[in-house]
Amino acid sequence: MILWVLYDVAEDRARGRVARHCKQAGLYRVQYSVFLGEVTADERDALRLEIEDLIDPDHDKVYLFTLTRKELKQAILLGQAFDRKLVTAQVRELFL
Amino acid sequence: MILWVLYDVAEDRARGRVARHCKQAGLYRVQYSVFLGEVTADERDALRLEIEDLIDPDHDKVYLFTLTRKELKQAILLGQAFDRKLVTAQVRELFL
Repeated sequence: MILWVLYDVAEDRARGRVARHCKQAGLYRVQYSVFLGEVTADERDALRLEIEDLIDPDHDKVYLFTLTRKELKQAILLGQAFDRKLVTAQVRELFL
Repeated sequence: MILWVLYDVAEDRARGRVARHCKQAGLYRVQYSVFLGEVTADERDALRLEIEDLIDPDHDKVYLFTLTRKELKQAILLGQAFDRKLVTAQVRELFL
């Protein structure tokens, strides 16, 4: 499954850790606080638990969406939603 | 189809207009800059064009994801991702 992780985390250290855990789960950065990649349901669930431990539930916001490849291609990213400088070939390949 | 709209729009007036257009398209507010609802493909495409006209493509970010009901139920919302004060019965019903 394809997983999008979008987050709004106030505290710098926590935000850095969330990004690190997303990378360790094999996701690719799409924007400063947006990651994307293919994971198993178990990997998604493990990442969820890790992120839950890192964030301040009273202030921070995190969205984890699973999409099919077809839906990924229908995803609409406007403006700077997709930072070309950050996006690797692997991510572009997911969209083609 | 179920549509999520998540946006990061810097300028207050533009941000307000994006929210208004999301409401006019029949979406419900889930968080200050997150809307959700059931729309047709044409309604999604029309909303996309409206939003494109409203935002500053060099700074703002907007994500439009279409999900199935099943995927919506698998969507993981952590922390304040889902502001219970804002969320109407219609939105909760989508998740059940």
